[in-house]
Amino acid sequence: MTDPSIVFLIQCPDQKGLIAKISSFFSELDYNILSCQQFTDEIQHQYFMRIKLDGQGVPLTRKELSQRFAELADKLDFTWSVHYQSDIANTAILVSKTSHCLFDLLERQSQGKIQTNIPLIISNHPDMEYLADQFRVPYYCLPIKDGNKVEQEQQILALLQRHHIDLVVLARYMQILTSDFISQYPGKIINIHHAFLPAFKGANPYRRAYERGVKMIGATAHYATNDLDEGPIIEQDVERVSHAYSPKTLASIGADIERTVLTRAVRSHLEHRVIITGNRTIIFPESGE
Amino acid sequence: MTDPSIVFLIQCPDQKGLIAKISSFFSELDYNILSCQQFTDEIQHQYFMRIKLDGQGVPLTRKELSQRFAELADKLDFTWSVHYQSDIANTAILVSKTSHCLFDLLERQSQGKIQTNIPLIISNHPDMEYLADQFRVPYYCLPIKDGNKVEQEQQILALLQRHHIDLVVLARYMQILTSDFISQYPGKIINIHHAFLPAFKGANPYRRAYERGVKMIGATAHYATNDLDEGPIIEQDVERVSHAYSPKTLASIGADIERTVLTRAVRSHLEHRVIITGNRTIIFPESGE
Amino acid sequence: MTDPSIVFLIQCPDQKGLIAKISSFFSELDYNILSCQQFTDEIQHQYFMRIKLDGQGVPLTRKELSQRFAELADKLDFTWSVHYQSDIANTAILVSKTSHCLFDLLERQSQGKIQTNIPLIISNHPDMEYLADQFRVPYYCLPIKDGNKVEQEQQILALLQRHHIDLVVLARYMQILTSDFISQYPGKIINIHHAFLPAFKGANPYRRAYERGVKMIGATAHYATNDLDEGPIIEQDVERVSHAYSPKTLASIGADIERTVLTRAVRSHLEHRVIITGNRTIIFPESGE
Amino acid sequence: MTDPSIVFLIQCPDQKGLIAKISSFFSELDYNILSCQQFTDEIQHQYFMRIKLDGQGVPLTRKELSQRFAELADKLDFTWSVHYQSDIANTAILVSKTSHCLFDLLERQSQGKIQTNIPLIISNHPDMEYLADQFRVPYYCLPIKDGNKVEQEQQILALLQRHHIDLVVLARYMQILTSDFISQYPGKIINIHHAFLPAFKGANPYRRAYERGVKMIGATAHYATNDLDEGPIIEQDVERVSHAYSPKTLASIGADIERTVLTRAVRSHLEHRVIITGNRTIIFPESGE
Repeated sequence: MTDPSIVFLIQCPDQKGLIAKISSFFSELDYNILSCQQFTDEIQHQYFMRIKLDGQGVPLTRKELSQRFAELADKLDFTWSVHYQSDIANTAILVSKTSHCLFDLLERQSQGKIQTNIPLIISNHPDMEYLADQFRVPYYCLPIKDGNKVEQEQQILALLQRHHIDLVVLARYMQILTSDFISQYPGKIINIHHAFLPAFKGANPYRRAYERGVKMIGATAHYATNDLDEGPIIEQDVERVSHAYSPKTLASIGADIERTVLTRAVRSHLEHRVIITGNRTIIFPESGE
Repeated sequence: MTDPSIVFLIQCPDQKGLIAKISSFFSELDYNILSCQQFTDEIQHQYFMRIKLDGQGVPLTRKELSQRFAELADKLDFTWSVHYQSDIANTAILVSKTSHCLFDLLERQSQGKIQTNIPLIISNHPDMEYLADQFRVPYYCLPIKDGNKVEQEQQILALLQRHHIDLVVLARYMQILTSDFISQYPGKIINIHHAFLPAFKGANPYRRAYERGVKMIGATAHYATNDLDEGPIIEQDVERVSHAYSPKTLASIGADIERTVLTRAVRSHLEHRVIITGNRTIIFPESGE
Repeated sequence: MTDPSIVFLIQCPDQKGLIAKISSFFSELDYNILSCQQFTDEIQHQYFMRIKLDGQGVPLTRKELSQRFAELADKLDFTWSVHYQSDIANTAILVSKTSHCLFDLLERQSQGKIQTNIPLIISNHPDMEYLADQFRVPYYCLPIKDGNKVEQEQQILALLQRHHIDLVVLARYMQILTSDFISQYPGKIINIHHAFLPAFKGANPYRRAYERGVKMIGATAHYATNDLDEGPIIEQDVERVSHAYSPKTLASIGADIERTVLTRAVRSHLEHRVIITGNRTIIFPESGE
Repeated sequence: MTDPSIVFLIQCPDQKGLIAKISSFFSELDYNILSCQQFTDEIQHQYFMRIKLDGQGVPLTRKELSQRFAELADKLDFTWSVHYQSDIANTAILVSKTSHCLFDLLERQSQGKIQTNIPLIISNHPDMEYLADQFRVPYYCLPIKDGNKVEQEQQILALLQRHHIDLVVLARYMQILTSDFISQYPGKIINIHHAFLPAFKGANPYRRAYERGVKMIGATAHYATNDLDEGPIIEQDVERVSHAYSPKTLASIGADIERTVLTRAVRSHLEHRVIITGNRTIIFPESGE
């Protein structure tokens, strides 16, 4: 059964009467408002809204609704997007050699806990092919060797375009993507970093966490930008650890944090509950509907 | 500096167009909406809203605003209340012999973290007088002995009325209040129970938690009703424990949970973020403003 | 690579000099002690120890070691058991219709995070066969219909015996086992209950949690005994929830708690970190080695 | 009632038979071992032990016990210390202008939850005098102005020495101490940093956490060393936050994390459950006794 609801994400300068104007706009067109979540950033004087409408039996076509809304948006200086929940996004997963994040995404998707298609998995190593096979997802192995990195990225991009990919998930893909690549999918590449950013940016975070003697370790899901591990954070979590844990044990505990954090971030994105503003994210909670 | 904002709490049967109608009502009267939090209970088909207005430089008197809103409320079948944040509530604390919850409330209130007056502390024991003294709050010791319980409650009620008490906090007051007492302050008595309700209702929860061998212990703040430990829950929390903890250690760890949970519940109530519906509570999160 | 270590679990009346006596016993036989965890129950005056030895290049056979230790044990009134980590236990999973706990166990086992063989999955429904297939584990569907329950249990027992099963995991097996069945595997059947015991024993815990309006939900893994949901608790966890969650959403959030709690309990059991004492468990933490 | 127990903290190169040798040493002298916690660092090949003895009715004087133990320690290359629980440490609190950490320490100490004397509070500002008064602790206000910093530190040191201070707690003391000062109390100065180290070292961590858009904030208690915010970490904790929290709200939420983390660290130190090794700490859990 497809979900007939429609989500508008709106961002604009804060001003008086916004809720009344927006909610009245939809009410007058006879749309039932299922939920309406807002946030006013009093430092930047920006207003953010996620409004969810019942799309069943409504009078307007998609095109008409967009045109009408665009008029209001122009008047009130909105940046906005509209999302039909019945449109299922296409997600590509990039992975190197570790299974935990990939497994979690494939399980949740196959069990209907994440609403997305996964038409392909791409890797620079052959190791995860068995897992792709287990879930019957096509697996493309595109190794990186002596200076073919640009070429390899071109192959990935070609695959992403051919499959009409809406979201790229880096599920422990241990390669730094070029600016060229990233700029083709702005706000559409989610990476998992195996540390509680901004602590332990870059390589070997578990080893460094061990050496620093921290009492908790964490993981961070963020949108990839040109600054490594500096993109807008979507989700983070941590777990208590003790002096008794070796770097290897930390990595094993961390794997469970990584998978949870990445899956939550992917779900927030796919449910259109994220607005990126500067280098921060507004995350509208799930319980709002 | 007093907070000039105004909070409306609204509950009504779910129906189309509510947000638009309510927000337009306030917009047309030139009130700026600072935040608007909603929840639709799809099982009971009830709608709940907490709407916060900027009350600075507004055209209407309190009486006028209430009269106008009452007209809308009648039409749409609202149960509602309005709260002026500049009206500071009077809170009475009832306590028996333990300091931790009392201490937390007095500290937070004295440090401005909880906005309320505490004109008096009432106890059936003299033990906590030194703490009341430390924070310079009047302390009334009304012991219970051979059958004077009804009388003692009458004395408490007289004190509460004389001090225009809006909220009664049972901060480990180890007496069961009569129905008579409770019915005079419906939805206005908050109790802390030292267990994760509905587990371990009644007496000696830590001893029973120890005997059952649970791996976490908790505390529950709820509105007192005539059914012991059965009232609407406001807040709960838990802490991990191990086999190595004796009932005494559990009580000591639990004390920290109790104080946190009770203080959070009191703050939610005082900030008008709670609506009671049946035996459940709707808690609007703090971050909504 | 097999793990050559040996674990002794010991329980005895508390008495002076136990650590010295036990550690000297092993030292004198030239065993290196890898870790030694203890707990003294000061209420029951019982002493518990988990001691882990390096079994590499040791002078004694298994039989000799047991015989020697039995002499000490007799003198000091030990209840004890010895476990060779290179002996991989056989685990049977019983499941009805839900995938989440089964999935977690199969993934962890297949990824080497849980050291056990899973020679078979048994169900009273055909629904989970695809998952068993995905992980290439034999699946036995033994439906229950008009009064064949005793017979069905006999068939299960026959399968467990034929496969030399050491541990039975009830991964959301929605049937109450008979005393007869349970008494054949004392301390060897782990059940997951989808509530924070002792709250919400029995059926429909998520619906009842919703109705009670709790602010956290949980799950409990315990050893099955003849008293339903009353056996020794191994592990529990909870998650914060809000009024906005329906019973269905609670069940979905709860599913993630259940799988984590059950897997942790199974791992504690398989790593010989659990001693049952009365209706409680001593759980020696992982970090102790 | 004074606690008659004796705690030995031991660190040495890992070697076979250590538990047997140490526990036999005490058993032969007729000391009852109340608890014995160990940790083997398999990377540095170091062994750590905290052993707690019943000191009631024992045959040796303190001097004799130390002399005897020193012989064993020499043979096995121990670094060690012995602590008599009946010796109550003297703690000085240094604070600038904020009350939350100070309050927590004073409350816990006055309620007997932390076993220490607090003979004085030192500040570079007069603001917290009222709190010191409330708990009847002497308050020394030593302001810093035009280049008197070295002098001011000398005054502090003089006070610490006069009061035989064993532990210095920087409860939000917003001054960087000189190397000279720190080197006089090695491993005896505990600082609270209002961020989850190593993230947000230095000034204004809450503002920077806000700007980075993190989804959790934290606090870290560590021993002060000459490298600012780089000393051995004793305790950390975090709390989930949302985009809706301003830097000011983060600071207010953070205050509760800081006080909890600092108090836990101070208690671990005072209960002799901490061994510093390099830039890391071994923390023996409370539940071990």
